[in-house]
Amino acid sequence: MFASAESAPARRGRPGYDRAQVLAVAVELFNEQGYDATSVADLAQRLGLTKSALYHHFDSKEQLLALALDEALSGLEGLLDDPAIAGAAPADRLAGVLRGAVLVLVDRLPYVTLLLRVRGNSDVERAALERRRAFDHRVTQLVAEAQSAGSVRSDVDGAVVTRLVFGMVNSIVEWYRPGGAIDRDRLAHDVVTVALDGMRTR
Amino acid sequence: MFASAESAPARRGRPGYDRAQVLAVAVELFNEQGYDATSVADLAQRLGLTKSALYHHFDSKEQLLALALDEALSGLEGLLDDPAIAGAAPADRLAGVLRGAVLVLVDRLPYVTLLLRVRGNSDVERAALERRRAFDHRVTQLVAEAQSAGSVRSDVDGAVVTRLVFGMVNSIVEWYRPGGAIDRDRLAHDVVTVALDGMRTR
Repeated sequence: MFASAESAPARRGRPGYDRAQVLAVAVELFNEQGYDATSVADLAQRLGLTKSALYHHFDSKEQLLALALDEALSGLEGLLDDPAIAGAAPADRLAGVLRGAVLVLVDRLPYVTLLLRVRGNSDVERAALERRRAFDHRVTQLVAEAQSAGSVRSDVDGAVVTRLVFGMVNSIVEWYRPGGAIDRDRLAHDVVTVALDGMRTR
Repeated sequence: MFASAESAPARRGRPGYDRAQVLAVAVELFNEQGYDATSVADLAQRLGLTKSALYHHFDSKEQLLALALDEALSGLEGLLDDPAIAGAAPADRLAGVLRGAVLVLVDRLPYVTLLLRVRGNSDVERAALERRRAFDHRVTQLVAEAQSAGSVRSDVDGAVVTRLVFGMVNSIVEWYRPGGAIDRDRLAHDVVTVALDGMRTR
């Protein structure tokens, strides 16, 4: 817990922060004004803590970035290892991964938003890009497997279509707002339906 | 034509620029370093022209932005009014618009990239966002029409699916490089195939 560094009476009732809460505020700030443009002083000010109170609990701004990116990446990576998904036929695994990716994006929206903005400006960012590439590679392999099994059409380029479909999923960060009119399960349903079966009736 | 403002012998053989070439270099620079961070002096330097030579041919940096955004938007808007598309059945019009949008994106990649980064920081940017919204609205109406006609499935939210499918198209700017291994017509085929008929075989 970060205890509040201020003890003015008006603030006495305010609770301290645990690490997850500090991380959430940091990610909010990184998304608002950019990671590079955000200082530890900015974060301390937003939280109403001193810089030294913050440094008592984490080593650096970069550590917060690493934890935030891991929050997004571990959610995505977990889908490929999920026993409920891993045992299914290729096209069903693909459906499970797509559905899961939408839910990870919606449930960890600020973390995934931050991940999608990473451009490789530091070792932490390059490691995150490497994990994204490894995830994409595993999904591309899954699509190739489904093409070999005859459950995904072979008249499209598997690697291109994997990029397109994840481009569709990732574009959700541009407009989705939690608590809005669009339910997360309904959204996941629409993504899986279009990606696997298309908009057209037959 | 912008004639080169410099007359040093070593540069004498360099041709001047026409408006389209100046615009192309401006867009390249806006995409590299951000529109707000790019000055007319930066652009003049990149072109090897004086600022006054540039101002002889356009009024302001903002006019270049407006022309660049119009280049992307008019390409997209033209699809909805294309007689070859407008006369077809709803699902075929949708296929024509999607295919055309991919080709506009690939053929005018720097212009569309710039358009997709616009956040509404000025009147020119707000007008461009308004035209994007109007385009999206017309495509959403086309999807609704196709749903009414029974050619697009009604178990998905038409407005959400329109966003998803254009999210897929727009994501192409993140990775497509002209002259690379992926042919534009093949890419357009894969987008239309997945969006309308899905990845799954049946």
